[in-house]
Amino acid sequence: MESMRMYDLIFAKKSGRALKPEQIAFWVKGVTDGIVPDEQSSALLMAICWRSMNTEETLALTLNMRDSGHRADLSSVPGIKVDKHSTGGVGDKTTLILGPIVAACGLKCAMFSGRGLGHTGGTVDKFAAIPGMKVELTEAEFIASLARVNFANSAPTGDFCPADRKLYALRDVTATVESIPLITASIMSKKLAGGADALVLDVKCGSGAFMSTLDDARTLAQSMVAVGKAHGMKIKALITRMDEPLGWAIGNALEVMESVEILRGQHKDSVLALESFRLSAEMLVLGGLAADLDSALLKVHGVVADGSAFDLLKRFVAMHGGDPTALDDFSRLPQAREQVEIKADRAGYVQSIDSRSLGILAMELGAGRKSKDDVLDFGVGIRVHVHVGDSITQGQTLLTLLKQPERPLPTIPDWVTLGSEKPSPVDWLLETVE
Amino acid sequence: MESMRMYDLIFAKKSGRALKPEQIAFWVKGVTDGIVPDEQSSALLMAICWRSMNTEETLALTLNMRDSGHRADLSSVPGIKVDKHSTGGVGDKTTLILGPIVAACGLKCAMFSGRGLGHTGGTVDKFAAIPGMKVELTEAEFIASLARVNFANSAPTGDFCPADRKLYALRDVTATVESIPLITASIMSKKLAGGADALVLDVKCGSGAFMSTLDDARTLAQSMVAVGKAHGMKIKALITRMDEPLGWAIGNALEVMESVEILRGQHKDSVLALESFRLSAEMLVLGGLAADLDSALLKVHGVVADGSAFDLLKRFVAMHGGDPTALDDFSRLPQAREQVEIKADRAGYVQSIDSRSLGILAMELGAGRKSKDDVLDFGVGIRVHVHVGDSITQGQTLLTLLKQPERPLPTIPDWVTLGSEKPSPVDWLLETVE
Repeated sequence: MESMRMYDLIFAKKSGRALKPEQIAFWVKGVTDGIVPDEQSSALLMAICWRSMNTEETLALTLNMRDSGHRADLSSVPGIKVDKHSTGGVGDKTTLILGPIVAACGLKCAMFSGRGLGHTGGTVDKFAAIPGMKVELTEAEFIASLARVNFANSAPTGDFCPADRKLYALRDVTATVESIPLITASIMSKKLAGGADALVLDVKCGSGAFMSTLDDARTLAQSMVAVGKAHGMKIKALITRMDEPLGWAIGNALEVMESVEILRGQHKDSVLALESFRLSAEMLVLGGLAADLDSALLKVHGVVADGSAFDLLKRFVAMHGGDPTALDDFSRLPQAREQVEIKADRAGYVQSIDSRSLGILAMELGAGRKSKDDVLDFGVGIRVHVHVGDSITQGQTLLTLLKQPERPLPTIPDWVTLGSEKPSPVDWLLETVE
Repeated sequence: MESMRMYDLIFAKKSGRALKPEQIAFWVKGVTDGIVPDEQSSALLMAICWRSMNTEETLALTLNMRDSGHRADLSSVPGIKVDKHSTGGVGDKTTLILGPIVAACGLKCAMFSGRGLGHTGGTVDKFAAIPGMKVELTEAEFIASLARVNFANSAPTGDFCPADRKLYALRDVTATVESIPLITASIMSKKLAGGADALVLDVKCGSGAFMSTLDDARTLAQSMVAVGKAHGMKIKALITRMDEPLGWAIGNALEVMESVEILRGQHKDSVLALESFRLSAEMLVLGGLAADLDSALLKVHGVVADGSAFDLLKRFVAMHGGDPTALDDFSRLPQAREQVEIKADRAGYVQSIDSRSLGILAMELGAGRKSKDDVLDFGVGIRVHVHVGDSITQGQTLLTLLKQPERPLPTIPDWVTLGSEKPSPVDWLLETVE
């Protein structure tokens, strides 16, 4: 280690050569300990964006980042623990739906979630919209939740992957976020530190997503699946469309309401329901609770139809100090005190919806964070009344903005494209990778 | 300017797009003022290594770096001022030879030189080996020297191109030195700040040089010539071989001795003499003192043969406090107190000489700087007794190391390749670019 120099790592990667596992260990340890100067890390990050990394390098980066901090130890809970990760979308509240479903089916669902930043929300923020709900659990509380209701969701219970946190902060200001191996290692190191045995990945693809082309999304999915398998994880990835918000709700309390509606059996044919049910079924198969997808889906529909999934959500909420009656009576959830309707200025078929713009609009209403210390307003958000393919008439209400009177109305972005032809329907599920 | 963000510059360059002149101005000003964080500059530098820059971008970078600090104003000296720049070689003492020659021919030769670092020496250090010699002139002293003896050589007379100095320090630790537009802007900004009207470039090519292939050397030469012309400079580049040290001397006092020998008419057929004379002739043509290279070379040989070039060197030395008698009596120059001979362990033809290794060996003897605050020993160095193509016998002395007894003998590197066949001769001059 003594004779290693960051310069040589940067030069090797810049020249298109693979880094050795011990070089990657040297870098990640140096980042964790604050010894490697930021200017050398950022040069190496850009060189990785340029030359990429092979599977062995990506594995080493993932492992070293996983080992840079705390790792959750869930071994005291018997059985397979499953997790799900989404690369991030607008209106994506699938965790609030699939967690209770999978748990109600009898599988342990152990999920660590983040807080939202920018145009995407965070699962932790959505749960936090339920009055009284504690979303930062200790590891003992996390394990107790998993043991008692089969479901645990929390912000990290320790300093997970500090090397990833430091590198991500650098990537964020140096335009080096978009790199398959760097994204893979960032996601997978945290998932491995979270201690689950099985993982379903939801890789978003489209204009509103990290990966805008199917090729990129597939490469990322393959990369993450390869790293997971190399660490003995049961893992599968779905590549799903993100060309419009997922569901009708953007905003924390609104998304709780929509999740409850799905768990009550409403909106059965919506993409949100279809995707949440499919992800749940994939988790059941990976967890060994169903032999195949069809039988898994039967179980999923069963726990929705008989109310046991919704009941499990209420028990989970109650266990962590939340008010379960707010899930029956939405007036007990945080509310916005003003509504603004956005109407169509002409007729036509909806060709596309820029979910990123709507995510930013919701953020500006107070539902999301512009910078990480911003305080959220859980009641505000957007009700989206249209989806791609809908025929709309002039004057029809397209969006309802739920806002607070004291906050000025943000500029409404160019978020929808209308056309005279009905676009051909596209399936929400593009591919699977396993 | 207010709405510009470094992130956008990095992202644009990373994505392969050209930066706008105002974006480059924003960056260079931010670097000069210390506002742009190093991690963002180094990410951008690596992205430039990746995507390169077009001529317009390189021009803008050069201009903004030139304007980031002091610029020499030589306008009080009438006539064309010529300069020469070498991309750096081991044993390269051509400035000590061509400066006096060009000046003796009646052309103003205005050169700012640097101190050496690593395996290459600096012209300022070589002049400093002459007892009493002042090598850091004020601008008034520089101009006076130019007016009185037609020749001035000094470390920069002000804070030339601080943006380049800061960026170079970053490039040095982030493996981003090797980039045609970055090298071009670094060299040309300083040459333009130096105030000369005409410039001959000596672009070294080969194993011991910055540019190891002719293609790279040609691209760099074309890039620098294009930038010089765009700024109204008369400019021409020679691409010369650097597959062995230039001349027999490596080390400061030794290189003064060898330069004096050339100016006295010795070693007429050596590559050092041929190259120095040719560079001098090119300077005379660019400066308008000769119509073509042949008539220029006649003048060059004339001022060597009649002793006026050597006489000019002595007047230049005397003018700046140096002892001109040391140029007639080398025992008055700094001396090493010990000699070590390195002999051939077998016979053969010299196939190649690793000049970089010899440069580092000389540095370790004390002739060069490992880090920029090292103090030099002007007397030490290496006498190189062989050149590529020489036939040598076992036991023949190949190198004489001139060292001080108190400093241990460094490890002798693998610096020479022997073979049974005489290699086919290669001309020292590979190409010209104008």
